[in-house]
Amino acid sequence: MIVCVCPSPAVDVTYHVDRMVPGATVRVGSVAERPGGKGVNVARVLHALGEQVRLVAPAGGSAGEQLRVSLAAEGVAPRLVPDRVPTRRTLTVVDASGTATCFTEPAATACWPELHEAVIGSLADARAVVVSGSLPAGVPREGLATLVRRVREQHLPVIVDTHGAALLEALAAGCDVVKPNADELEQVTGMADPTPAARELADRHGTAVVASLGSAGIVAALPSGTWAAYPDAPVSGNPTGAGDALVAGLARGLARDVTALEHPEDWLRDAVALATAAVRAPTAGDIDPGQYADELARVSIRALDGVG
Amino acid sequence: MIVCVCPSPAVDVTYHVDRMVPGATVRVGSVAERPGGKGVNVARVLHALGEQVRLVAPAGGSAGEQLRVSLAAEGVAPRLVPDRVPTRRTLTVVDASGTATCFTEPAATACWPELHEAVIGSLADARAVVVSGSLPAGVPREGLATLVRRVREQHLPVIVDTHGAALLEALAAGCDVVKPNADELEQVTGMADPTPAARELADRHGTAVVASLGSAGIVAALPSGTWAAYPDAPVSGNPTGAGDALVAGLARGLARDVTALEHPEDWLRDAVALATAAVRAPTAGDIDPGQYADELARVSIRALDGVG
Repeated sequence: MIVCVCPSPAVDVTYHVDRMVPGATVRVGSVAERPGGKGVNVARVLHALGEQVRLVAPAGGSAGEQLRVSLAAEGVAPRLVPDRVPTRRTLTVVDASGTATCFTEPAATACWPELHEAVIGSLADARAVVVSGSLPAGVPREGLATLVRRVREQHLPVIVDTHGAALLEALAAGCDVVKPNADELEQVTGMADPTPAARELADRHGTAVVASLGSAGIVAALPSGTWAAYPDAPVSGNPTGAGDALVAGLARGLARDVTALEHPEDWLRDAVALATAAVRAPTAGDIDPGQYADELARVSIRALDGVG
Repeated sequence: MIVCVCPSPAVDVTYHVDRMVPGATVRVGSVAERPGGKGVNVARVLHALGEQVRLVAPAGGSAGEQLRVSLAAEGVAPRLVPDRVPTRRTLTVVDASGTATCFTEPAATACWPELHEAVIGSLADARAVVVSGSLPAGVPREGLATLVRRVREQHLPVIVDTHGAALLEALAAGCDVVKPNADELEQVTGMADPTPAARELADRHGTAVVASLGSAGIVAALPSGTWAAYPDAPVSGNPTGAGDALVAGLARGLARDVTALEHPEDWLRDAVALATAAVRAPTAGDIDPGQYADELARVSIRALDGVG
């Protein structure tokens, strides 16, 4: 079982409109709502792959109730921690030309201690733990670091996908894998080139750094060497959620075989194939198993430094 | 007690943002949410004035639950009818320059028969009934007309604030007062000048037509004659909700004295003063009693045809 921690879940709302004119009254043609947030997306991909998943997230207010109902309907059994701060919404307004404007509400929580305990209480049958997404306001300094350390004490692999100070905390606390994108990597290393940046961060912290580079695939700085993995041909589609599918693949691989970090070719190929299948999926996170199998055959992987 | 029927309630959400750029990701600085919809606003003004109010509205989904909780917190006792269609939201995005972009979700209901019965079941101690707002998809043809007729059978005054086909239905069904704005009046009469348009409509249906003309006040075509009422000086502020405050004033007046239609000066003066106080209020619907008293002294009223 894989525990997915989502500190900042959301109800993702999509409005379809004809035209979005600032200052006008815009009639919304249709409204779609679904649970979102990076940790939710990771859990959804793992569930779609048939993995046993436990999603741990705070939930408050009417959006929190909506989260509870919708996740149950999707079959993703959540362990939602009651929060007196309402769960946020994100709104994407898509006009007839396909232009998407995204409004992100601020995320906050008042239940980090309870969330922390809910994660620890979920570890009995866990094989891996993923923490994915921004930390909301209300998480204490070192809160994520303490959580990572407590999970590591149980000898479970921890994968963290976050950014900024939280990413640095996770690294310092000894998480097994981090998954920054190129911007997030530059933000914490000051280096624009992701390959040496990932290597530097991995060496400094003794952690695997898997950097997602959009259509260029990934660069993975591991103890066993530095690797590049990428789809053979350009992929068109919706990149939203591809990073979450990548994280889902990395988590599934480590949950099955924690030594994947030492012989990473299949592990990385699998994760990149999942991310590519997510890009091709009509809805973020809805992986088509056939598509995923096709992508697996189309991932190239090579060692960048001759060590691997 | 005044029964306020709100066929299309909403949760009104306001996002404050720095800049709204179509196609971008916009960080929301703050989020405010409150129950809305014209009938809700009317009930809120009446409640603020110390009137006994019963708000009858459909409520579904998480926004419906939010409506229930928030209205109870405001002290507006609602009689919410469970709806399997979720209650809509309206979103206003206000940028740093004050430009407001409004997104209105479509309104629909699946519980009109139950709503109808809830209104009828609320009439025992009622003195007046207000129906305010658009009719959502799902209300049958003649649904509003049947409701108006059933209330009229109880000899209670009925005020309807809606537009288009629903407005014509209410007029044909013999409601006592309609409150179109200038556009709504032109839409059903084809006449651009509101004074003869209101008179024509009133004469055709034997109904009082009180047309709201924004900063120009109102024109009221009544059985007793045609009247104009307006604030003495220009009013600046937020016109949102002013029409609902006007309706609240008209309803309160008729609930107290159903013969107000025959000697309408005080009745119209009071309603216009409430609308003006609403424009000056920082939040739509939050009438300041002192402001309202001041406005009462500043409303001019005159008969337009020598009959009144």
